[in-house]
Amino acid sequence: MSSDAGLSRWGWGHADREPTESERLDLKRQVETRLGFPERPLLSMPDDDPEVPESRVDPPFHFCTTDPDARARHTYGKGYPDLVRGFHGEYGPAPDAVARPEAASEIPDLLLWASEEQVAVVPFGGGTSVVGGVECTAPRYAGVVSLDTRELDAVLEIDHTSRAARVQAGATGPELNAQLAEEGLQLRHYPQSYEFSTFGGWVATRAGGHFATRYTHIDDFVESVRAETPVGPLETRRLPASGAGPDPNRFLLGSEGAFGVITEGWVRVQPRPRHRSRATVRFDDFWDGVAATREVVQARLSPANCRLLDPSEAMLNELADDGSSLLLLGFESLDGPTAGDLERALASCADHGGEWDDPIHRGPSHEGDAGGTGATADGDGDDDERSGTEGEWRSSFVEAPYRFNTLVSIGVLVDTFETAVTWDRFPDLHEAVRENVGAAMREQCGAGFLSCRFTHVYPDGPAPYYTLLAPAEPGTELEQWRPIKQAASDTLDAFGATSTHHHAVGRVHRDHYHREIPDSYLDALRSMKRTLDPEGIMNPGALL
Amino acid sequence: MSSDAGLSRWGWGHADREPTESERLDLKRQVETRLGFPERPLLSMPDDDPEVPESRVDPPFHFCTTDPDARARHTYGKGYPDLVRGFHGEYGPAPDAVARPEAASEIPDLLLWASEEQVAVVPFGGGTSVVGGVECTAPRYAGVVSLDTRELDAVLEIDHTSRAARVQAGATGPELNAQLAEEGLQLRHYPQSYEFSTFGGWVATRAGGHFATRYTHIDDFVESVRAETPVGPLETRRLPASGAGPDPNRFLLGSEGAFGVITEGWVRVQPRPRHRSRATVRFDDFWDGVAATREVVQARLSPANCRLLDPSEAMLNELADDGSSLLLLGFESLDGPTAGDLERALASCADHGGEWDDPIHRGPSHEGDAGGTGATADGDGDDDERSGTEGEWRSSFVEAPYRFNTLVSIGVLVDTFETAVTWDRFPDLHEAVRENVGAAMREQCGAGFLSCRFTHVYPDGPAPYYTLLAPAEPGTELEQWRPIKQAASDTLDAFGATSTHHHAVGRVHRDHYHREIPDSYLDALRSMKRTLDPEGIMNPGALL
Repeated sequence: MSSDAGLSRWGWGHADREPTESERLDLKRQVETRLGFPERPLLSMPDDDPEVPESRVDPPFHFCTTDPDARARHTYGKGYPDLVRGFHGEYGPAPDAVARPEAASEIPDLLLWASEEQVAVVPFGGGTSVVGGVECTAPRYAGVVSLDTRELDAVLEIDHTSRAARVQAGATGPELNAQLAEEGLQLRHYPQSYEFSTFGGWVATRAGGHFATRYTHIDDFVESVRAETPVGPLETRRLPASGAGPDPNRFLLGSEGAFGVITEGWVRVQPRPRHRSRATVRFDDFWDGVAATREVVQARLSPANCRLLDPSEAMLNELADDGSSLLLLGFESLDGPTAGDLERALASCADHGGEWDDPIHRGPSHEGDAGGTGATADGDGDDDERSGTEGEWRSSFVEAPYRFNTLVSIGVLVDTFETAVTWDRFPDLHEAVRENVGAAMREQCGAGFLSCRFTHVYPDGPAPYYTLLAPAEPGTELEQWRPIKQAASDTLDAFGATSTHHHAVGRVHRDHYHREIPDSYLDALRSMKRTLDPEGIMNPGALL
Repeated sequence: MSSDAGLSRWGWGHADREPTESERLDLKRQVETRLGFPERPLLSMPDDDPEVPESRVDPPFHFCTTDPDARARHTYGKGYPDLVRGFHGEYGPAPDAVARPEAASEIPDLLLWASEEQVAVVPFGGGTSVVGGVECTAPRYAGVVSLDTRELDAVLEIDHTSRAARVQAGATGPELNAQLAEEGLQLRHYPQSYEFSTFGGWVATRAGGHFATRYTHIDDFVESVRAETPVGPLETRRLPASGAGPDPNRFLLGSEGAFGVITEGWVRVQPRPRHRSRATVRFDDFWDGVAATREVVQARLSPANCRLLDPSEAMLNELADDGSSLLLLGFESLDGPTAGDLERALASCADHGGEWDDPIHRGPSHEGDAGGTGATADGDGDDDERSGTEGEWRSSFVEAPYRFNTLVSIGVLVDTFETAVTWDRFPDLHEAVRENVGAAMREQCGAGFLSCRFTHVYPDGPAPYYTLLAPAEPGTELEQWRPIKQAASDTLDAFGATSTHHHAVGRVHRDHYHREIPDSYLDALRSMKRTLDPEGIMNPGALL
């Protein structure tokens, strides 16, 4: 059984990236001076000996363990409440055992046993859920087993003709792309969790990648999926498209382990894009940036990057500090030059008062073509894009979750929430979010900071993504966090926005999700669950 | 109640387009000389007095009728078996009554009554199903009511900011676009049935439009849907995107009336494209055309038209008669010139031996810009594209279903079937289809003609569309047709192709569909149906 020892038990990412004293002092100084927060404490770092409750089960399988460290590591995802509890050494909801099968063929017996013994099974990929997707207390069950898929990490087959690959669910982004790179291919899907999250997790949660338009959700890359359910396998046919009935892939996409565990799938892959163009546009007024962004996407241009950062977000990411909003625009193409598309997008920006420095173009006809097909450490192979604002942004994008570790360790409440809404409703929604979440932060914490960016944009609406920071009282962080999160969810719901664009539902968004979907559809989903999971063992409490 | 008197009762389209004697003689001559079929008869045209069985129900609603002509007109769709039976005046499966509500609010009472009385309800839009989607005998029911939605034909609301419109289910293509055109917008979705089929029917059957890539299925245009089910409304939230659970829109898309009747939805609309480029490429060898087509779509170019016609298809459509295959390539854009994209596609064609005449470009910077935003009679507003091969193709595309009427009237068996399959499997599938369907036609009819085109293409595979013609024996057409259709479906299934890319499942493809999807998924869909339609009244026998 592989070890997770290289990873932080309580925080995001690698153990050797847990915050150092100097990083903590530096960030403490920044939140105190730049955000004006009251003096923050340097909290005691977690000790090395996690305490978990006694295990209630003893699964009769060689691939299962009740080791306390393994159980602690499978207790939470990586949301703020998870980090806080892990930081304080609270592992009460730890699963009773961890299963880490070495072959998908070992899973049916586990599900059979769990169904018979009334043991809940919680699929676990990268454990990067920020919505309580892998945390399961299930008091009415005989126990809980966390089913870790990460030994199932192979690319099993590549169809070069159709540009598709059959991959196992437990492969992380880098594992998947390293295997594909040997054949000159990539799965160009880069969620922020890319380094740790798994293909199966992406499918189960409808993960959003870093593309702003067109190929945004993993949904767009999936040709077929196989899941093991308690009543047997559910494997869809590999097809480029179909018009036959409600799409079975779309049923497993977003299923969040509630019907079964995803074990593999066929995905659409491609060579590395040869052409790229990008520019960073400054707007004095955020709403001018919104209007320009809408115009670009409604012209049916398809930028790979089209991230609009409000002044707070630009400041937080150290990209601008003068009250400007920034639009990060990038185009890429396998085939032909992208400069024309960028120019068309920039013309829209100019119409709305945007300003930019020289655009940057990369490709066979430009200097600076990096060539090659390999993935780099941050996963997207874009080693030619490491300079300038775009490079700083990408670095900030990958580093941001690490900063959460540090913030938790200095008593700062930090969370993000995201949604999608039609353009007509966005201005009112945005104003209400700023007002309501701001008020909740002030009430709970005496102060607060809120920033917004668009992570994805569609012809009919943006996907705004909010980051909030507030000074927390160590020991009562979750009591302070809950009303703030509630204010955010209630506001999104009141304006008809979705409970989540790409963070998934899990347990944290479940109430909002149930308000969002029609009652009759929820009933129908529950009837499907009863059919596929008659004993209700699959991730109880998530989604449904 | 509107009358359908202007429409043919038995055949495709308008009554005044039923085949004339000279059209029949002309086509008879053509199939005898060009296809080498034995001498075809001029069958007696249908008489005007359809005989339908006695009605078994008397629905207590002002919007219902048991008029024999109305019942005859709601008996069938427009597939070959439908045309043949209508032509011969066989209306045994006629519904017992036709409901044509004038408001969606009248539907819940109808469904309640039908549930109580055990009367089957069959949603009916344009009645253009070619898969038995609206034909329901339901012997175990107390009766059958055809629920015609065509009075619900309004565009209810337009959101210009988000470029979306709320439309009722019963609007046909021209009705919908005429209302949108008043606001300078279009729903650019043009299935071959466009003139008669309805928005609700498109959603229920996951209709495919004339775009070859990207915005192909109606699925891509739908923001939200509302359906009435026997247990109440199922209305999804209007969202540009979401990552919350299995997508409820995708559950209604392809539902084929089996869970409820679609009454309205929000769709993404857009202004008329300002730029177009097109060319027709000739290939001596079909497989060179296949390779070029694959290269174009795998370069992630997004042609609006990318139809590859094999030599038989080119001949049938009178576009080429020398054994060439043709690739009809077209690009369109709201925003910038399309010439560059076309040139890049043509470069791929050249690499595979393709040849073409001068490409044609339309747009603000070219002569011949047609301007305007109105939809024309054939629905796609492309009145600037009526010349050359492309124009002939479009005319042929719209006229083809009328030719079916004429063929039926001269004893020619005519059918089409379509699928989608990954590129790696297409060559073997294509060979097997030609062999097996050819053999079945020879066995049943002594001769046969089969042609193929790609209607849609994806990076991972094409959607091939086959047309078959064979000399039929009047009176036994369906006995001859069934084994031929079976050979087609069995071959598609054997090679892992889908039962349908855009013709839907209905009753004709149901067995194939049940082999295509996992058993556990079929069980799950059935459990959803029991939840939403406890008495099983909704379109029994279709899909599930």
